[in-house]
Amino acid sequence: MNQDLRREREAASFNPELLTHVLDGSPENTRRRREIENLILNDPDFQHEDLNFLTRSQRYEVAVRKSANMVKKMRDFGIADPEEIMWFKKVHLVNFVEPVSLNYSMFIPTLLNQGTTAQQEKWLLSSKGLQIIGTYAQTEMGHGTHLRGLETTATYDPETQEFILNSPTVTSIKWWPGGLGKTSNHAIVLAQLITKGKCYGLHAFIVPIREIGTHKPLPGITVGDIGPKFGYDEMDNGYLKMDNYRIPRENMLMKYAQVKPDGTYVKPVSNKLTYGTMVFVRSFLVGEAARSLSKACTIAIRYSAVRHQSEIKPGEPEPQILDFQTQQYKLFPLLATAYAFQFVGAYMKETYHRINEDIGHGDLSELPELHALTAGLKAFTSWTTNAAIEACRMACGGHGYSHCSGLPNIYVTFTPTCTFEGENTVMMLQTARFLMKSYDQVHSGKLVCGMVSYLNDLPTQRIQPQQVAVWPTVVDIDSPDSLTEAYKLRAARLVEIAAKNLQNEVIRRESKEVAWNLTSVDLVRASEAHCHYVVVKLFSEKLLQIQDKSIHTVLRNLCLLYCLYGISQKAGDFLQGSIMTESQITQVNQRIKELLTAVRPDAVALVDAFDFKDVTLGSVLGRYDGNVYEHLFEWAKKSPLNKAEYLLLHSWRSQPSHTVNG
Amino acid sequence: MNQDLRREREAASFNPELLTHVLDGSPENTRRRREIENLILNDPDFQHEDLNFLTRSQRYEVAVRKSANMVKKMRDFGIADPEEIMWFKKVHLVNFVEPVSLNYSMFIPTLLNQGTTAQQEKWLLSSKGLQIIGTYAQTEMGHGTHLRGLETTATYDPETQEFILNSPTVTSIKWWPGGLGKTSNHAIVLAQLITKGKCYGLHAFIVPIREIGTHKPLPGITVGDIGPKFGYDEMDNGYLKMDNYRIPRENMLMKYAQVKPDGTYVKPVSNKLTYGTMVFVRSFLVGEAARSLSKACTIAIRYSAVRHQSEIKPGEPEPQILDFQTQQYKLFPLLATAYAFQFVGAYMKETYHRINEDIGHGDLSELPELHALTAGLKAFTSWTTNAAIEACRMACGGHGYSHCSGLPNIYVTFTPTCTFEGENTVMMLQTARFLMKSYDQVHSGKLVCGMVSYLNDLPTQRIQPQQVAVWPTVVDIDSPDSLTEAYKLRAARLVEIAAKNLQNEVIRRESKEVAWNLTSVDLVRASEAHCHYVVVKLFSEKLLQIQDKSIHTVLRNLCLLYCLYGISQKAGDFLQGSIMTESQITQVNQRIKELLTAVRPDAVALVDAFDFKDVTLGSVLGRYDGNVYEHLFEWAKKSPLNKAEYLLLHSWRSQPSHTVNG
Repeated sequence: MNQDLRREREAASFNPELLTHVLDGSPENTRRRREIENLILNDPDFQHEDLNFLTRSQRYEVAVRKSANMVKKMRDFGIADPEEIMWFKKVHLVNFVEPVSLNYSMFIPTLLNQGTTAQQEKWLLSSKGLQIIGTYAQTEMGHGTHLRGLETTATYDPETQEFILNSPTVTSIKWWPGGLGKTSNHAIVLAQLITKGKCYGLHAFIVPIREIGTHKPLPGITVGDIGPKFGYDEMDNGYLKMDNYRIPRENMLMKYAQVKPDGTYVKPVSNKLTYGTMVFVRSFLVGEAARSLSKACTIAIRYSAVRHQSEIKPGEPEPQILDFQTQQYKLFPLLATAYAFQFVGAYMKETYHRINEDIGHGDLSELPELHALTAGLKAFTSWTTNAAIEACRMACGGHGYSHCSGLPNIYVTFTPTCTFEGENTVMMLQTARFLMKSYDQVHSGKLVCGMVSYLNDLPTQRIQPQQVAVWPTVVDIDSPDSLTEAYKLRAARLVEIAAKNLQNEVIRRESKEVAWNLTSVDLVRASEAHCHYVVVKLFSEKLLQIQDKSIHTVLRNLCLLYCLYGISQKAGDFLQGSIMTESQITQVNQRIKELLTAVRPDAVALVDAFDFKDVTLGSVLGRYDGNVYEHLFEWAKKSPLNKAEYLLLHSWRSQPSHTVNG
Repeated sequence: MNQDLRREREAASFNPELLTHVLDGSPENTRRRREIENLILNDPDFQHEDLNFLTRSQRYEVAVRKSANMVKKMRDFGIADPEEIMWFKKVHLVNFVEPVSLNYSMFIPTLLNQGTTAQQEKWLLSSKGLQIIGTYAQTEMGHGTHLRGLETTATYDPETQEFILNSPTVTSIKWWPGGLGKTSNHAIVLAQLITKGKCYGLHAFIVPIREIGTHKPLPGITVGDIGPKFGYDEMDNGYLKMDNYRIPRENMLMKYAQVKPDGTYVKPVSNKLTYGTMVFVRSFLVGEAARSLSKACTIAIRYSAVRHQSEIKPGEPEPQILDFQTQQYKLFPLLATAYAFQFVGAYMKETYHRINEDIGHGDLSELPELHALTAGLKAFTSWTTNAAIEACRMACGGHGYSHCSGLPNIYVTFTPTCTFEGENTVMMLQTARFLMKSYDQVHSGKLVCGMVSYLNDLPTQRIQPQQVAVWPTVVDIDSPDSLTEAYKLRAARLVEIAAKNLQNEVIRRESKEVAWNLTSVDLVRASEAHCHYVVVKLFSEKLLQIQDKSIHTVLRNLCLLYCLYGISQKAGDFLQGSIMTESQITQVNQRIKELLTAVRPDAVALVDAFDFKDVTLGSVLGRYDGNVYEHLFEWAKKSPLNKAEYLLLHSWRSQPSHTVNG
């Protein structure tokens, strides 16, 4: 154990194990999670080279091997529960992307959801056993967000009872699907269905792309890797171009919509259920944001406890950099955010399961709000986390730029979350649409429920400055509940401003859609304030469930820090509408500094509670055993001068002209 | 020419060539810059593979070859002026790092500044000719910011008249110097000088590290690459460990301090001049921030003009994404920032040259302010640019994550600027120290001059809320001058708050240093506000020099956008102290939306004016010829499935157990 970290741990005011149980949901969950993690950590088959020292191609090869191993081991270990699979993968992969993941996360689920029984019989077993490796090809070079704009066509030919697949333009080439570039031999392709001369919109087709056995692209198929990316080296995101490529009619997934042998189109009864998958994935991503941020905080805070630098008082030993107020101000609000997002992630999971059960009973009433909430929270948490990981990295000084910190990999693996599964700005505008609908509902005299119920209390005509006194202004900056009220008032005010600006634009412009676009900056701001309120509210409510007094105290400080930091960053929003006074904002800034001091002694224990065994695998700076600098020196020795480099340098030295051409 | 871009250019309200002349300083500068750029762009020796598709080792090899070529070509082309060398390198290297750069940027200048004539005679010619390749080894594994903490020792042995160099601890190993890992055979090493049993602090020594001819590390030297990093693949940042390694007495750079043969230490007369180098490098980095941000804006705005997606009105063709207000709100304030920083960069260069001349005449009076200003502006512009490059990248949707955008490389190449040459928080605190000194000076009845002269106008006791009415509150949000006043008042207020909080802490705490640490968050905030004011002021003043009316109009809009966006982001600062009213902030938000609409028709011309010929070399999305998607498809084809991958996948397919072990 590192001496600095040992001292930090001994000084903590609480037992981190108890907090780990809170984060996992129960002591039993913690036990089982560790059991699964240890299966992997103790298994020699799961050791592999440090990926940072490999080429992209080598990283891909390691990933393919690991993917194959993983499938086998999960079977061996009897791990089948989705949550347990997630724990297993998270430790197994250590911030690592696997080429066959889409077979399990998209190909098989889509087959199950949209395939007929006969189709499942035909493809399910072999895709589960990886004879077939499938992926899901939706995005095209020219279209991601706007699904209706996808250009790939599947034209039915009744004579042969086949669909003819085409990529009619450069922009229609499928682009980005994971595992498509090299690994997969099948893809579920989304294409515009054309039959009897009419286009019926997007449908899903099972498309063989490579020959089983030889793994060569099939005739009519052009497939390959889209090239190097910012991270995701192990993943072969790919392209797919189809030229008059024929597949049997039976390859269209026909559980809902159908094309009869003669080409007659039978439309689906309902498509509400596909809605559920999006909601599930986005609510899962909120938890991923929490996890990535927690990991970044663990590394940055541990390193800040170990790193000694400069001096506070001249002549005294160099302090831990965690003792500098500026370092605390960089990291502790992020630590508070990590906890906030952990609780939001847990809430999203519970809510999803609850509403999913309701849906099972035919009750879809809560789905619109859940959809709006997951969209907004996915954007809010991923934007925040994205910037926060980089802040953690830059808080580690020079070593943050080295892969030894593990932070660059956390960043590049996380950052696509801001764009995939719904681009964040688009997500915020979806939430805004729900907020505007709710606002209109209140204005037409109906009450709204759920997280937006604060709109019921809106006094009319309130945004005129002279009438702001209507607000209750007694915010107690030491009460999470009172601060939640302040965030609620801010959200209500920004929703109202967006709604009124939208109304004004509607009056001025020729179309509602143009008005919407010209108000979209206000709409995004309103959604952000709404999401921020939800996070603050959930964190405050979580405190009520904490029994242990020592845990309650530290979490309450983090909750206050999260709330007050947000107010300080967005002080204008809280001053406007007189939610808070100028002198309160001054007090907020003072109180934040006091909270930094209060959190300081528990900072290391607070990241220990996240219980990342695997930090040590990906990060030298996050290690807690021994001397971090000795580990760093060992790590660096893995990239000696190789022979080609030596010969080049040697030849250069011996040439007086200093021209070294290849 | 791409059709969308052609249409954008035809619709512009001004001639971008005229604006390019403004940015370059004169039409003659533009002409000469292009002449140099064309030398490279037309030279087949400078074409090379796309680095994105190479391994780290291959990238390093290309870089070494290019470095060698560059030295030769600059000689051939007769390029010797420092500014011209910079242009040459910038185009030549295209966001590319060269292993021998430290030989020219640090080794030779240090030899010239600190070496005696005899030392220059001995090493200068061969280092200019690259027989000797030198680097500059200062940072150690355990110390970057805190120079006095460096642990490497150089102990003088009068018997042999040698220095004995040692790395006594793991943390004392030199870490990070560019070109040290593989390329260099000499290093200027900073070490604690010990002679006659006494330590005299840091001094510079010329240390041979590899044998000329064989390029093997010399006995007593352990040297190598520190391993993979976030970017900088081409650079062999290295480590250096010395064990009782002896160098002759003559290898200590002795222009100022000296060690006599008997070991007597002769201290330097003055060390003010080393100050100058830091100031120069930091002021240069302000220009680099401007350049990197301008490039990122060029790519993101061109791509947003070419990319069509979604719909504003149903049934109409897909709009350019640049027509979405949210996209404009993401990009145009950054474009305004890029222009702001361009002008700040030009100002810094002029000021540096002016003050350098003064220093030449023995006048050091302006050096403290220049030092404070460069420190703060280096931090302010690099933090802003760092976040802005990522915002540009994420504004490009999925393609922003691909190296085809060029943006990940711009980011990873730029981001170290936040840490090197003075860690940003440390820089901000240096500026704060100057601000506090100036504040104290005013309070003791003396006037201050230069950028801080606003402190002369501070009414005493003004931060009490009840007295805020003292401020003039008539801010005209359509006047850059009036907005500059508002920023000035904000800076003055935050400097005063920091000063008062510091005073309070000094009274409460046992030491000034502890008080400083416990106020450092306020101090950084004050420095940021000061720097923000300086940027706004310089941009506003630049407008006065613009003759052409059409150019003046677009730059004025950008200046307003920069000022108002900053106010909107930091509204709390402007509401507090009643610098602005709530209804003014509401107007600011409205005015920003109008400015987005005003900038929209000129957005492409505004990035064209940056005149980056080289964008097309590093970025597919930034290209302006033909169809960007066709270029993208060609680009992706450069990474086909290789043989090892194929064999692995093929073997996997034929094994029923699906276990592929390496």
